[in-house]
Amino acid sequence: SVAAIVFGDGSQSRLYPLTKRRSEGAIPIAGNYRLIDAVVSNCFNSNITKIYALTQFNSTTLNSHLSRAYSGARLAKEGFVEVIAAYQSLEDKGWFQGTADAVRRCLWVLEEYPVIEFLVLPGHHLYKMDYRNLIEAHRIKKADISVAVLSSMRGHDPGFGSFKVNSENEVIEYRDTPESDPVKSVSVRSSSVMFNDVADHKYLDSMGIYVISRDAMIKLLREYFPKAIDFTSQVIPGAISLGMKVHAFQFDGYWEDMRSIEAFYHANIKSTRKSKMAYNSFYDRDSPVYTLPRYLPPTSITDAVITDCVIGDGCILNRCNIKGTVVGIRTRVGDGAIIEDSVIMGSDIYQQTEDERKSTCIPIGIGEGSRIRKAIVDKNARIGKNVMIINNDSVQEGNNEANGYIITAGIVVILRSAVIPDGSIL
Amino acid sequence: SVAAIVFGDGSQSRLYPLTKRRSEGAIPIAGNYRLIDAVVSNCFNSNITKIYALTQFNSTTLNSHLSRAYSGARLAKEGFVEVIAAYQSLEDKGWFQGTADAVRRCLWVLEEYPVIEFLVLPGHHLYKMDYRNLIEAHRIKKADISVAVLSSMRGHDPGFGSFKVNSENEVIEYRDTPESDPVKSVSVRSSSVMFNDVADHKYLDSMGIYVISRDAMIKLLREYFPKAIDFTSQVIPGAISLGMKVHAFQFDGYWEDMRSIEAFYHANIKSTRKSKMAYNSFYDRDSPVYTLPRYLPPTSITDAVITDCVIGDGCILNRCNIKGTVVGIRTRVGDGAIIEDSVIMGSDIYQQTEDERKSTCIPIGIGEGSRIRKAIVDKNARIGKNVMIINNDSVQEGNNEANGYIITAGIVVILRSAVIPDGSIL
Amino acid sequence: SVAAIVFGDGSQSRLYPLTKRRSEGAIPIAGNYRLIDAVVSNCFNSNITKIYALTQFNSTTLNSHLSRAYSGARLAKEGFVEVIAAYQSLEDKGWFQGTADAVRRCLWVLEEYPVIEFLVLPGHHLYKMDYRNLIEAHRIKKADISVAVLSSMRGHDPGFGSFKVNSENEVIEYRDTPESDPVKSVSVRSSSVMFNDVADHKYLDSMGIYVISRDAMIKLLREYFPKAIDFTSQVIPGAISLGMKVHAFQFDGYWEDMRSIEAFYHANIKSTRKSKMAYNSFYDRDSPVYTLPRYLPPTSITDAVITDCVIGDGCILNRCNIKGTVVGIRTRVGDGAIIEDSVIMGSDIYQQTEDERKSTCIPIGIGEGSRIRKAIVDKNARIGKNVMIINNDSVQEGNNEANGYIITAGIVVILRSAVIPDGSIL
Amino acid sequence: SVAAIVFGDGSQSRLYPLTKRRSEGAIPIAGNYRLIDAVVSNCFNSNITKIYALTQFNSTTLNSHLSRAYSGARLAKEGFVEVIAAYQSLEDKGWFQGTADAVRRCLWVLEEYPVIEFLVLPGHHLYKMDYRNLIEAHRIKKADISVAVLSSMRGHDPGFGSFKVNSENEVIEYRDTPESDPVKSVSVRSSSVMFNDVADHKYLDSMGIYVISRDAMIKLLREYFPKAIDFTSQVIPGAISLGMKVHAFQFDGYWEDMRSIEAFYHANIKSTRKSKMAYNSFYDRDSPVYTLPRYLPPTSITDAVITDCVIGDGCILNRCNIKGTVVGIRTRVGDGAIIEDSVIMGSDIYQQTEDERKSTCIPIGIGEGSRIRKAIVDKNARIGKNVMIINNDSVQEGNNEANGYIITAGIVVILRSAVIPDGSIL
Repeated sequence: SVAAIVFGDGSQSRLYPLTKRRSEGAIPIAGNYRLIDAVVSNCFNSNITKIYALTQFNSTTLNSHLSRAYSGARLAKEGFVEVIAAYQSLEDKGWFQGTADAVRRCLWVLEEYPVIEFLVLPGHHLYKMDYRNLIEAHRIKKADISVAVLSSMRGHDPGFGSFKVNSENEVIEYRDTPESDPVKSVSVRSSSVMFNDVADHKYLDSMGIYVISRDAMIKLLREYFPKAIDFTSQVIPGAISLGMKVHAFQFDGYWEDMRSIEAFYHANIKSTRKSKMAYNSFYDRDSPVYTLPRYLPPTSITDAVITDCVIGDGCILNRCNIKGTVVGIRTRVGDGAIIEDSVIMGSDIYQQTEDERKSTCIPIGIGEGSRIRKAIVDKNARIGKNVMIINNDSVQEGNNEANGYIITAGIVVILRSAVIPDGSIL
Repeated sequence: SVAAIVFGDGSQSRLYPLTKRRSEGAIPIAGNYRLIDAVVSNCFNSNITKIYALTQFNSTTLNSHLSRAYSGARLAKEGFVEVIAAYQSLEDKGWFQGTADAVRRCLWVLEEYPVIEFLVLPGHHLYKMDYRNLIEAHRIKKADISVAVLSSMRGHDPGFGSFKVNSENEVIEYRDTPESDPVKSVSVRSSSVMFNDVADHKYLDSMGIYVISRDAMIKLLREYFPKAIDFTSQVIPGAISLGMKVHAFQFDGYWEDMRSIEAFYHANIKSTRKSKMAYNSFYDRDSPVYTLPRYLPPTSITDAVITDCVIGDGCILNRCNIKGTVVGIRTRVGDGAIIEDSVIMGSDIYQQTEDERKSTCIPIGIGEGSRIRKAIVDKNARIGKNVMIINNDSVQEGNNEANGYIITAGIVVILRSAVIPDGSIL
Repeated sequence: SVAAIVFGDGSQSRLYPLTKRRSEGAIPIAGNYRLIDAVVSNCFNSNITKIYALTQFNSTTLNSHLSRAYSGARLAKEGFVEVIAAYQSLEDKGWFQGTADAVRRCLWVLEEYPVIEFLVLPGHHLYKMDYRNLIEAHRIKKADISVAVLSSMRGHDPGFGSFKVNSENEVIEYRDTPESDPVKSVSVRSSSVMFNDVADHKYLDSMGIYVISRDAMIKLLREYFPKAIDFTSQVIPGAISLGMKVHAFQFDGYWEDMRSIEAFYHANIKSTRKSKMAYNSFYDRDSPVYTLPRYLPPTSITDAVITDCVIGDGCILNRCNIKGTVVGIRTRVGDGAIIEDSVIMGSDIYQQTEDERKSTCIPIGIGEGSRIRKAIVDKNARIGKNVMIINNDSVQEGNNEANGYIITAGIVVILRSAVIPDGSIL
Repeated sequence: SVAAIVFGDGSQSRLYPLTKRRSEGAIPIAGNYRLIDAVVSNCFNSNITKIYALTQFNSTTLNSHLSRAYSGARLAKEGFVEVIAAYQSLEDKGWFQGTADAVRRCLWVLEEYPVIEFLVLPGHHLYKMDYRNLIEAHRIKKADISVAVLSSMRGHDPGFGSFKVNSENEVIEYRDTPESDPVKSVSVRSSSVMFNDVADHKYLDSMGIYVISRDAMIKLLREYFPKAIDFTSQVIPGAISLGMKVHAFQFDGYWEDMRSIEAFYHANIKSTRKSKMAYNSFYDRDSPVYTLPRYLPPTSITDAVITDCVIGDGCILNRCNIKGTVVGIRTRVGDGAIIEDSVIMGSDIYQQTEDERKSTCIPIGIGEGSRIRKAIVDKNARIGKNVMIINNDSVQEGNNEANGYIITAGIVVILRSAVIPDGSIL
C-alpha cells in the first residue's frame, strides 16, 4: 500500500500576509475549506488513508485542523491523518532543514507501516487528481521514482523546476526554474513543452508530487544523500544522476499553485463561477472534498441581492448586495453593505449580542454601509461602518500593516483580526 | 444524575403527510435540523448526557439520525444518546402500547445507570429550556414528580392536558383536554390561567415534560399501575390520586407543539424572522443547537434576490427570487424560479450532472421558471419546470396524494420524493 | 458497489436463555466481542462499508452495540452501519414477518444508495470469509442470485436448507432441511455432498448467505413474490423455479452456526485453543475483528494459574485457578476460586468498593472459594462464595430459571444478572 | 471557565533511554496507558475540557497519542485536547525557550476562548487530583496565582523548587531547589515542612501546578516579564516579588514525579499491588483514566502462573511464569519464559506468523526460555530465546546502548526496538 507525506508549509513569503499566523495549507478557501483539504481529499478519494502531514512553520492552525477534520472519512484498517510537527531530539536539536531532511528525521515513524511506496505531496496546491493512476503507472514502469508533471504550460509552481523527458516519459534531467531571473525564466519557459529538441525530448514542469518506492526512499535519504535537505533540488536530481529509474506522469487537469496573493485571489473568485477551468468538485458525490465537520446554523438572510457567490455555512447577511464573492463561514454583513469581487474568510466564532452592545469595539464582520471591492478580508476582521475598501487610488503595492492591511497586485488584503474603524477609506 | 427519556414519535396523524415515512422527531426544520435536535440540544445544554430515545413509529430516519448525530457533543463519563427501538421479546411480542408501557418494558435498561431522576420528554416540541432549573426545583421541593407547565395560554399541546395547581405550585388535579369536543375545550380553556377559583387555584397547561424520581418511577410502573400504558392520562393522574408529591414548574419561553401542519409551517416561517417570539437560538454560542455534523460544500448562488430566508448548507441557487422561506440543505433552485412563504426541506443527495442528462427524469429540486407560494416541499421532491404551486383556487383542504401533494389549511404540502411534472398548476 | 443486509436476530429459541434479553447477534463471545462482530468485520475486511442491520427481537443491546461499535473502522465515502429496527407505519402496523418481509418494508431505504448487489447475511454465524470472492464469482457468472454453501458436511444451520447444484455450480433445486425429523434429516444428510446422483448433481448445505442483484431483489420482492415473508424458504426457491440464474459458491473454512447452547459453548471453548479449526482471526493484522472500542484498565492478577484461556479486557483475578475458559471483560474472580471449561461473560460495570461494603448484596463476579465447571455464566451474574457449579449429578437438561440457571446438554447456564447465594451447589 | 496548559516534555535527560524517541508524557505506563493520560484524565474528571498540550521535544509519539486518544471523552460545547507543537514564525524562528516562552508565543491562540483562569500542568507526573478544589480555593482567595504544593515530604520534583508560606497559605518567597548540590539540598529539605521559622512560616515543595488568572497571565508574560522564559524560576518568583497575590494549595494524595528511571520503575511496580499508596484509580467508575480507545483481542494464555501483575490488552502468553510485573499491550511471551519484577511495555503491532517464519529475525516479544528480572523492556523490543536479563553481576550503572540496553540503579533497561540475540546474558 501507499503512505502519503504531505507538506503543509509551502513557501511562507509569497502568500503573506495570509501566512502571517498560519501555514499555507491552513488558509481558508472557497468558503468552507482550508487549502490542505484539497490534497487530503485527493488522498481519500484515491483510497490512500495513511497520511502523514509534516509541519513546522506557523503550524498551530494547520495542526489543529488536521487533527479534528476528516473524522468521519478515515478508512478502516488503521487509516489515519497524522501530524508530525517539527521536534527536537537528543541527536538533533534543529528544525527541519527542508523536505528531505524532514522525511529523513521521521523515517523511523514512516517505516513502521509496511508500505510499498511513499507519495510526497505539497499541501498547498489546488487540484483534483486520482493518485491511483499515478501509482499504477509507477508500478507498471517499475520506476524507482515517479514525478507528476504538467502537460501544458497553464501555470506552474516555480519552486519545483522542470524535467527533461524522452518519448518514453523517462526523466533524463532536472532543470531548476530560475525564479529570480525573469528573463532567463521566460527563455526556459519558451523552450519547454512547446519546442522539443532533436532527440524528441521535451521539458515538463514539475508539480512537486513524487512517488518514491520504499527502498529507494530509504537508500536515497540514508545512504546516497545523507546530507541532502531538499527533494526537489537535491534528492530527485541526485537520483536521476545515479541512474535510478525516474518516470514522468503527465497531468492535464486544473491545477493552481497559489504562488501569489493574486493567484490565490483568482482561484477563489473562479470557484464562484461554474467553470470547467476551476477547482469545483464540491458537489461531486463520488469524490467529495472533506474538511472539518461542523454544526453551524443555516445562513440567515434578511434582504440580499447575491450574484455569482459561494456562501459558507452559518452566515448572517442583512440588507446587502454581494457579487462575485466568496463568503466564508459565519460571515456577518451589515445593512447597506456592498461587496464585489472579494474573498471574505469569515469568523471563527459568533459574537454574543450582549457582548457587542456592552463593548464599544467594532464587531467581527462587515459593518453597515461599508463597501468592499477586490479585497481579501482575512478571518475575524472587524470592518466598521461606512468603510470604503475600494482602493480608490488604484494602488498596486502598499504595506500598511500597522493599520491592518496591505495592498498587493491591486488587491487589498485586510489582516486576520484587523480592526478597520468606522468611515475608513482604503 | 439525571437520565432523559425522549419520545420521538408524537402523534403521527396530525403532521401527516410529513410523517408518512418518518416520525415527528425526524421532520426537518429550519434548514439544517431535525425536530428532535431541539430537545436533545436542550439536554446537552442542561448537562444531561444520558439520553434514551424510545422509538417505534416510522422510526428508521429518526434512529439513523440519532445514532449519527451529536457525535462531537457527547459528554465525558459515559454520555450517550441511545435509541431504544420497540422490540419483541419472549415475554411480550407486542409493540409499545404507550409511553408508560414503553418505559416499563425498558426499565431493565434504564435501571443500569445509578441515576436519581428520570426526565420524560416529548421529542417533537420546539422550545429552549434549561432543564436544570426544573430539576433543581424538583429537588428543593422534594417532589416525587415535577411537571412543566405553560405559564401562559399562548399555545398548548392538547395531548398533554392541564393541571390544577395551588398557590404553592402543588398539583391537585389533572384535567384531560377534551380535544374532540371544541365547545367543552373552550370552556375549560377559558377557565385556565385567566380565572382562578376561590381557593386560589389555577389551571395550567401541561408541556408533557415530567421529572420523576427513580424510586417513584419504579413503583408507579411496576407496583401501583402495572397495567398503565400512558404517563399523561394514567400514571401522572394516578400518582396525584395516590397523594404523591407532584409539583408544577412554570415555563414562559417560546414553545411550539406542532399540533398541525399549520403550526409546523408557522414555526418554520417564524425562524426566518429575527423575532423574540420564535425559536431562534441557532447563533447562541452558549447553548447551540446540535445536529448531524456534515461535510457539505458552500451554498452556490448564481443570481438571487433573497429576503427573510434561512438557507441550509450546500444549496445551489440559480437565478431566482426567494422570500420568507426556509431553504433546506442541498436545495437546488432553477433559473427563474420564485419562491415565497414556503418551507423547502431540501435533498438527501446531490444528483450527478451526467445522470441527470441521461435520465429523462425530473431532477430533485425546484425546476426552472417554477413558482411556489405558501407551500411545504418535503425532502427529495422533484418539482419540474414552470410548475405553479400557488393554490390559485385557495383550496383549504384537499388530498391529492396520488399526484404527490395534499392541501391543508391552505398550505400545499408536496410529499417526500414526489414528482410534479413540468407545467403543473397546483 | 455492494450493500450488506445483516439479520441480527436468528432463531431466538435455540440459544435460550442467552437470548432472553438480547438477540443472537448481541451474545458476548470470545471475551471481548459480540457475535455479530464476526459478520460485520467480514464486511469491513471485504471493503463493504454500507451495512444495514435489521433488528426486531430483543434488539436493545444489539442496537446499542451497533450504533457505538466500529466507530474508528468505517470507511470513507459515506460508510455506515445503520440499524433498521422494526417499526410501525400507517400502511403496516405489524412486525417484520420474516427476512423477506423485513427487506421489502425497508426497500425504500435500501434503494437510496446506487448499489449493484445486496449481500444478505445472517448475523449470528461465526466464520471468516472474504465476501469479495463471492461477489466476484457472482459477477463473472452474471448470476441473479448467488448462494454461499458449505463444501463439506462439518456443520450446518438447519434453518437454511440445502441446494442441489450441477457440475457448473448452478443451483437446480432448493431442499428444505427437515429439522424436526431427525431420521429423515440423517438420510438427507447422507445423500448430500457424499453421493452425487447420476447427472453429476450434488446437494450442498446453505449458509444462508445470498448475493442478490439489485434489480432481481426489487422484482422478486415487489412483483414476483409480493407476499413472500422469508428468503430461504420462499424467495430463493421461487427465484429458482422462475428460472432465474442462481449460482452456488462453495466455502470451506471454519463456520459455526451456533444452533444450540452446546454449539455456542464449544465454539467459545475452541477459541481458547490455538486450533486451525476454530474462529481465531483476532490476531490477524490484515483482517482484524472489530468491535466496540473501550477504555478498560489492564487486567489485574493477584496470583493465578491460568491454562488455555482467553482473558477479556479489564479483569480482576485474585488467587484463582482458571483452565480452558473464556473470561469476559471486567470479570472479577475471588480468592480460591477454581474455574474450568467454562464461558464467563463478564460484567458491564465495575462496582465500587464502597458500595460493595455497604450493601449486603453479592457482588458481580465469581465469589471466593467458588468452583465452576462446564458452565456458561452470563453477564453481570453474581456468584456468591463457596458456590459449586459443577453439575454433580450430571443433569443433562433442567430448567431452574427461578433460581437463576438452566442446564442444557449438561452445561449449566447461569442467567444474566442472576444471583447465586453463598454456598449454593448446582 | 478554565483552560489547561499541559507540558508534555518534562526534563528529557532523567528518564533516558525511555525518552530517546519520545517525550516523557508519551512513556507507556501501567500496561495500557501513556504517562500524560493521568494528567489529562484529571482534567476530564475535574470538568476541564479545554486542554492545550504544548510539545517540542521528541513530540511525535505524544502528538499522535493526544490527537487520537480521549475521542469518546471530550465534553460538549467545544471541548478539545489541542496539541500546540513548537513552530517557527516570521517573527520568531526559534524553538520554545522554556515554559513561559512557549505560553507567551501561544497566547494569541489561548486568548481566543473567554476563559477566566489558566491551569498550568506538567504532563509527566502521576497523581490523581480534582483540580476543582484548587480552582475554588483560588477564587475564594481572590488570588492572582495559586500554586499546588505537597503537604508532606514524601517525594518531590526538584525541578519545581519550594515556597515559603505563612499561616494563611500565602506565598512569601520562592526557593530554588539546589538539585546539583545534594548537601545543600538536604539541608534545605530538612528545613522545609518539618521546621517552621519564628514567624510561623514553612517551606512546601512545589508540584509545578499553577492556576493563573487570565489578566495576570497576560500582564506577566507581556508587560512585566516579556523576556522571562520559565514559569518556575522566573515568572512565579517575579510575581511574588511584584507583590501579586500568590496562594499555596496543599495536596496530600499520592504523587510521583518520575524523576529517575528508578522512580519510574517503582511507580509501575507499585501499580501491580493493591496499595493505597499507589496510583490506582483505573477501576474507579467516577474518575476513570482515559486513554486511546483500542480494538485489541482478548489476552490469550496457554499455561501461565501469574502473580501480582497487571496485564495490558491483547497479550499472548504461552507457558510462562510472570511475577510482580507490568505486562504492556500486545506483549508476547514464549514458552518457558520467567519474568519477575519487571516492566514490559509491549508492542505496537502484531507480527504475522507467516512473516516470522520466513524471516530469520527475532520476533517482537520475549523469547522461549528467557528469564527477565528487575528490568524495563521498552516497546517493540525483540528478546531472543534463552536470554538471561538478570543483571547477574549486580551492575548499578552501565551504558551498553550499542547492544540495546543500559543499566541504571541496578535496573536493566532494554531499548525500544532493541534486538537481544538468543542466548544473551545481560
